[in-house]
Amino acid sequence: MTAAYLHTEPILVAVDSIVFGVDGNKLRVLLFRREMEPASGEWSLIGSFVKKNESLDEAGKRILYSLTGLEDIYMEQLYCFGNTKRDPGDRVVSIAYWSLIDITNNDLELEYDNHQSKWFAVDDLPELVLDHGQMIEKAMERLRRKTRFEPIAFELLPKEFTMKQLMNVYEAIYGEELDDRNFRRKITQKNLVQRLAKKDWSTSKKGSYLYVLNKDFHKTLNSDFLY
Amino acid sequence: MTAAYLHTEPILVAVDSIVFGVDGNKLRVLLFRREMEPASGEWSLIGSFVKKNESLDEAGKRILYSLTGLEDIYMEQLYCFGNTKRDPGDRVVSIAYWSLIDITNNDLELEYDNHQSKWFAVDDLPELVLDHGQMIEKAMERLRRKTRFEPIAFELLPKEFTMKQLMNVYEAIYGEELDDRNFRRKITQKNLVQRLAKKDWSTSKKGSYLYVLNKDFHKTLNSDFLY
Repeated sequence: MTAAYLHTEPILVAVDSIVFGVDGNKLRVLLFRREMEPASGEWSLIGSFVKKNESLDEAGKRILYSLTGLEDIYMEQLYCFGNTKRDPGDRVVSIAYWSLIDITNNDLELEYDNHQSKWFAVDDLPELVLDHGQMIEKAMERLRRKTRFEPIAFELLPKEFTMKQLMNVYEAIYGEELDDRNFRRKITQKNLVQRLAKKDWSTSKKGSYLYVLNKDFHKTLNSDFLY
Repeated sequence: MTAAYLHTEPILVAVDSIVFGVDGNKLRVLLFRREMEPASGEWSLIGSFVKKNESLDEAGKRILYSLTGLEDIYMEQLYCFGNTKRDPGDRVVSIAYWSLIDITNNDLELEYDNHQSKWFAVDDLPELVLDHGQMIEKAMERLRRKTRFEPIAFELLPKEFTMKQLMNVYEAIYGEELDDRNFRRKITQKNLVQRLAKKDWSTSKKGSYLYVLNKDFHKTLNSDFLY
């Protein structure tokens, strides 16, 4: 350490991950039984301490993988939480990350490597440790804001999806029911998705066309204020 | 400290502040001569270490005030920078904050309390210490994005301003010249500002009407994607 840094007080640094998935038209978040004191056994986000020789992003990925087996999913830094009394165990600054996954491909309602996890609907969360409730709230705000301007909702879906599945994802994110016909019209106007020549036959006799995200979506999503 | 936390490695935590101001139609950032090793004497953002008994927001405010005398200005957390090699002095995680101030009311091109500071145009920055160049870049992105959807540009102006001053601020933020007539039309359409009954007589014989931010601006800025 440089001499000039010697008189500074080191602080514990942690990473916590908010993992969102959509089940039907419900937004869910993945919670764990906390495995250390204080508050051992209570519901918690996925988190742990950052090691000295890993970056924050690396820590986020390592912790997510070690607790869930998940990797290569959408993950973004949310905010750094640093109130002095947020953790009764010690002064801990926590960098929160948020992730989106396609729940239909990831059945995590099971124990993974002996870690007890469960998907909770965001409108029916249990009591949470520390400031994890605040973290989820902030992540939901970010998810809603970002959904308006970027096609991140598609991270919650399989690569090919029906219009109904897409609408369910938007309903889950905004927490309200949307008008079916209105939704189809707006999505079509925005030129956000591309219809494939094949159908999903699992839900009706007529079948439902499958769609993929339009590769040129970025040209269509610029709802600028001044330009 | 809780026993369960004993085996974790504490990390140094710092705060760095990006302070933006507009001078004419140039976006400027306030830089300081760094006062400690490594890289003492080089240009740097305003920053220092977080103390164990203060929150991150408190640290940001304390450091800004102690180096510039500035307080009660727009300040928001930007991002937490945590690559392992970002600071050759030691492993330091830095939480960057960004601020906007009305430069016309704050002449900081002077030494403050013996700290040497200078406003640099963002398109003509000197070599910067550590990853401070990256921090400024990220803050500019955030400023540009946020300007599209929230009236934060007004933080860079005096409370009463001319249409020309407002346009200069938008030009400074986006780094390009705007068409005068087009700009006035769009601002008027958006119902973002309110014209006062008085004029600024300093720049022309005819005088220029003064404006204030419309208190109801939040009703006019919702350029939602799906609603």
